[in-house]
Amino acid sequence: MKRDGYTCHALSFDYGQRHRHELAAAERVARHLGVIQHRTVAVDLRAIGGSALTASIPVPKDRPEADGGRAGEIPVTYVPARNLIFLSIAVGFAETIGAWDVAYGANSMDYSGYPDCRWPFVNAFIEAANLGTKAWDDRTRRHESAGFRVHAPLINLTKAQIIRLGRTLGVDYSLTHSCYDPDEAGNACGRCDSCLIRKRGFMEADLPDPTRYAAAVVGR
Amino acid sequence: MKRDGYTCHALSFDYGQRHRHELAAAERVARHLGVIQHRTVAVDLRAIGGSALTASIPVPKDRPEADGGRAGEIPVTYVPARNLIFLSIAVGFAETIGAWDVAYGANSMDYSGYPDCRWPFVNAFIEAANLGTKAWDDRTRRHESAGFRVHAPLINLTKAQIIRLGRTLGVDYSLTHSCYDPDEAGNACGRCDSCLIRKRGFMEADLPDPTRYAAAVVGR
Repeated sequence: MKRDGYTCHALSFDYGQRHRHELAAAERVARHLGVIQHRTVAVDLRAIGGSALTASIPVPKDRPEADGGRAGEIPVTYVPARNLIFLSIAVGFAETIGAWDVAYGANSMDYSGYPDCRWPFVNAFIEAANLGTKAWDDRTRRHESAGFRVHAPLINLTKAQIIRLGRTLGVDYSLTHSCYDPDEAGNACGRCDSCLIRKRGFMEADLPDPTRYAAAVVGR
Repeated sequence: MKRDGYTCHALSFDYGQRHRHELAAAERVARHLGVIQHRTVAVDLRAIGGSALTASIPVPKDRPEADGGRAGEIPVTYVPARNLIFLSIAVGFAETIGAWDVAYGANSMDYSGYPDCRWPFVNAFIEAANLGTKAWDDRTRRHESAGFRVHAPLINLTKAQIIRLGRTLGVDYSLTHSCYDPDEAGNACGRCDSCLIRKRGFMEADLPDPTRYAAAVVGR
């Protein structure tokens, strides 16, 4: 979004995720990339439960299905309606700062088991957001502007393509975090879906993987 | 919903509202009506700001526009994307308990200035919710069932009609709370839009108003 000339305000969510280390990582990345501000909104999704990422369901390890979700099953790390909730809060944030463009980091290639990472959902969401906010002008029955747009620049890229693109844009991957089940120090487990997909991404992109893995994994 | 035979799970939101007294009231009402459970989800909308209900913007008092929003202006008590966010969390909750029916207390008659209290928004939201959750089966490209339904039984009723309907269904209005700006003890201010509309509702319904108003208002 920065490359395309947008002035960026970053938003993260503290939703009771096991992998809270990603919040510190998001803060580091946001500062490194020079955004106007980075806000973290607390929304306690543990109160509704239902996912391995927020409840006491174990995070699956070493799953062969982490090969691109081709099995078509929705994994237990799916958080009910999570991205619908996050996009809704993002639209509220956009409204308060007078922005119309929301950038969404969803990726459908590696996680095709997640229904909220696909264009049909994103397009339906935009329609709902425009009808449910000030963007919709009740008097004229027309949008004040073109309305909200949701950009999802990574949605149709493979993990390897994403990693290469980030590299050309100056992303420092040593600042980033993907693991669903890190240890206390924030080291990646190396075995959850998110780690497996990230690792293979670096391999396929033929780039060094700067991820700090837990000792037990490094030793394998 | 209970009258129509549904088994009810109630959901409230602690979103940083000034009128947190409504959360205790919701708990009282839910217990009185005998729901299966009542959960309160914390979502800190103060972090995005932009409303008199969550930020340090004063709640307007004695507004003539509280006559049914006919002026067409969206009031400063509008919380950006609030109901979009609440409905999204409700759909996530429904998903975790295996429910397909979400009941939404929106009312368009008295608050026509709120864009998220109207059917076009609700219908677009249902579409997004079905595409963004497990309800959508990627393999068959069809919904698992008819998908989520959002019921909004109060949406086209006047406040007087709502009060009469509640009366026939056994609602104890002394347990309820509407004021946007109550005093410490939870007494209603009697002067915000929400109080003005509620008061007029009781008058038009020709029913006694059991609301506890702040002393200064009672004395007027």
